[in-house]
Amino acid sequence: MFVLSIVIAYSCNNAEGSASEQREKYVLVVHGGAGTITRQNMTPEREAQYRSGLEAALLAGYQIIQDGGDALDAVEAAVRILEDDSLFNAGKGAVFTNDGRNELDASIMYGKNRMAGSVAGVTIIKNPITAARAVMEKSEHVMLAGRGAELFAMAQNIDTVPPSYFRTEPRWRGLQRSLRNDSLRMQNQTAVITPDPDRKFGTVGCVARDKNGNLAAGTSTGGMNNKKYGRIGDAPIIGAGTFADNNTVAVSCTGWGEFYIRNVVAYDVSALMEYKNMPLSDAASAVIKKVGDAGGNGGLIALDKNGNMAMPFNTEGMYRGAITESGKMEIYFYKD
Amino acid sequence: MFVLSIVIAYSCNNAEGSASEQREKYVLVVHGGAGTITRQNMTPEREAQYRSGLEAALLAGYQIIQDGGDALDAVEAAVRILEDDSLFNAGKGAVFTNDGRNELDASIMYGKNRMAGSVAGVTIIKNPITAARAVMEKSEHVMLAGRGAELFAMAQNIDTVPPSYFRTEPRWRGLQRSLRNDSLRMQNQTAVITPDPDRKFGTVGCVARDKNGNLAAGTSTGGMNNKKYGRIGDAPIIGAGTFADNNTVAVSCTGWGEFYIRNVVAYDVSALMEYKNMPLSDAASAVIKKVGDAGGNGGLIALDKNGNMAMPFNTEGMYRGAITESGKMEIYFYKD
Repeated sequence: MFVLSIVIAYSCNNAEGSASEQREKYVLVVHGGAGTITRQNMTPEREAQYRSGLEAALLAGYQIIQDGGDALDAVEAAVRILEDDSLFNAGKGAVFTNDGRNELDASIMYGKNRMAGSVAGVTIIKNPITAARAVMEKSEHVMLAGRGAELFAMAQNIDTVPPSYFRTEPRWRGLQRSLRNDSLRMQNQTAVITPDPDRKFGTVGCVARDKNGNLAAGTSTGGMNNKKYGRIGDAPIIGAGTFADNNTVAVSCTGWGEFYIRNVVAYDVSALMEYKNMPLSDAASAVIKKVGDAGGNGGLIALDKNGNMAMPFNTEGMYRGAITESGKMEIYFYKD
Repeated sequence: MFVLSIVIAYSCNNAEGSASEQREKYVLVVHGGAGTITRQNMTPEREAQYRSGLEAALLAGYQIIQDGGDALDAVEAAVRILEDDSLFNAGKGAVFTNDGRNELDASIMYGKNRMAGSVAGVTIIKNPITAARAVMEKSEHVMLAGRGAELFAMAQNIDTVPPSYFRTEPRWRGLQRSLRNDSLRMQNQTAVITPDPDRKFGTVGCVARDKNGNLAAGTSTGGMNNKKYGRIGDAPIIGAGTFADNNTVAVSCTGWGEFYIRNVVAYDVSALMEYKNMPLSDAASAVIKKVGDAGGNGGLIALDKNGNMAMPFNTEGMYRGAITESGKMEIYFYKD
C-alpha cells in the first residue's frame, strides 16, 4: 500500500513531464488581482481595458524572452506595465490608506541564485518593482521599508513622482465609500453595509522562464483599501507573496494577504514540489485549498522549471494571462 | 533501492518517536542570538550575566507552563524578559541604526490556529513581542510597520517609553565603531577594518509547548547594527524568523536575516518535517546547512509536537537554553 502510493505519485510526476514535452512551454504568466470578478459586474468596455492591460504586460515580457533576455528583466518589464496602468491596484491606481495616502509594496525574486528584493510602504517610487530589484541587486538587504526604502531608491536614481501621481478618482471614491461604511458601523452596529468588493484583492504579478531555464517572480500592490496602522500584506514578503527557485517554480500571489503570510503560500508551492514530488498543478491547487480551508481567499500564478503553468484561485475571478514560446496568448477573467 | 530509502526514513522517524517517549520532554527553549561567541572572548562575569538572563527567561516561561498555562503566554513572558535585559539585542539594549535610533522588530505565532502577529521598525514600544501579540489578537492583520504599528499599540494600551529608554552605552559605542569603519572605508579602500562581531546576530527568541500540546514561537530583535534605509530582517517575518504549527514544530531564528528570508528558514523546518517525514533534528540541521551553503550564518531553536528539541547553528556560538517538564535546565553558549 505504502509502496504503491509512492509509485503512483512518481508516475504522475513523470506523466506531467512527458505531457509538457509534447505541448508548448509557457514562458510568462501575469495576474492583475483576484476578487469579485464576475460577468455580471463587467461591461464589454471594461473587459476590453483589462484585456488590453494584461496583453501589454504579456507582450513586453515575451519580447524580452524571445530576444534571449533574462526572466528577471521580463518580470520587471511586465510588472512595470501593470503598475503604470491605473486599472490595477499597483503603482498608479493604487488604493488609498485610511489616512488618504497611496502606500506601495513590491517584491522580486530570481530563481537562478535565489536572490530577492522588496520594498514596503513607499509613497513616491513610480515603479516599486524596480526599487525592489535595486534592493536585490544594489544593496546587501532583501527588504527595505518606508522612508528608508525611498532614500535608498533615490540614491539609485530610481524614478520618483509626487504622491499625487498615484491618485485616481475611482480609488479615491473607494476610500470614501469605506470611510462612510466605517462611520455607519460606528453609529449603528446593525446597519446594512455594502462591502467594498475590491478591498483586499488588487495586486499584480508576473512569473517568467527564459531560454536559459532561469525563473523569476515579481509582485506589486497598493495593498488593502482603507488600510490602517502601516499594515504590510504578503506582496513584499518573500516566501508569502513571491518566490522563485530554478530547481522548482516561480510563484506570485494575490489575495487576502494575512492568510498568505500565515500559510507561507509562495514557498509552500515550491516545498510541495521539492519535498513531495508533486507536479505543479497539484501543488498549486493544494496550497490554494489550504488558504481556503483556513478561511482566506485569493489566487496565485506559477511557472515551473519545465514551463508548466498553473493559475488556481478560489475567488469569483482572477485577472490572468499567459503566453507560450510561440507567442500564443491566453487571457482569462472568470472561473469558467 | 527507492523503497529501501523510504523505509529507512520511516523507521528513523519512528525511532525518534520512541526515544522521545523514553526521555523527558522539553517544554521551553530560548535563544539570545548567534554569532562570534567563543570562550576566548568571554569573561566569567559576562558568562554569569548571560546565564542569568537566559535562566530568568526559561523560568518565567516554565512557570506558566507548569501552572497549566498556554505556550503563547510562556513565549511572550520569556521574550519580554530577554527584551528587558540590556545584554541582548532586543528591546532595551538594541543596536543602533545608522542615524542613531533603536528600531525594533518582533513576531509571534501560535501553533494551535496558525495565527500570527508582527511589528517592524517600532521605536517607542517597550516590549515589541507584546505589540506583535496584540497585532495577532486584536487586529485583522499580521504585520504592522513603523509609526502605524506604534499608533496601533498605543490604541491597545501597550506600554510605550521614550526612545532613549533603549539606549545603552555598549551599543552606542558599537555604532560609533561602525561609523568610524564606514568613514575609513570611504577614505581608504584598503584600510584594515575590524568588523563588528555582533553586527548581525543579536536576536532573542523562544519556542514553547504547553500541557495541551499547543506550540508557540516568538522572536524579537533590534536588527543589524548601523542598519540603513529601513532595513527589515527575518525576525518580524512569519515563515522566515518565526513559525509555529501544532502539527509539526515551533521555530525561532537568529542569524544573518537576508539569508533567512530568502531561505524561508522557519517554515522550511516545518515543511521538511511535514512533507518529507524528517525528524526534527534532521530537518533543523538540513535547513541550517542550506543557510550555510548559501553563504549565510546563524542558528535556530525548535521544539516539535512531541517535545523534541533542536538548537543547530553554524556560527562560533549561540546563547541558548532549554528546560524540560521536570524543570531540568540546560544552558549553552559555545559549539562544544
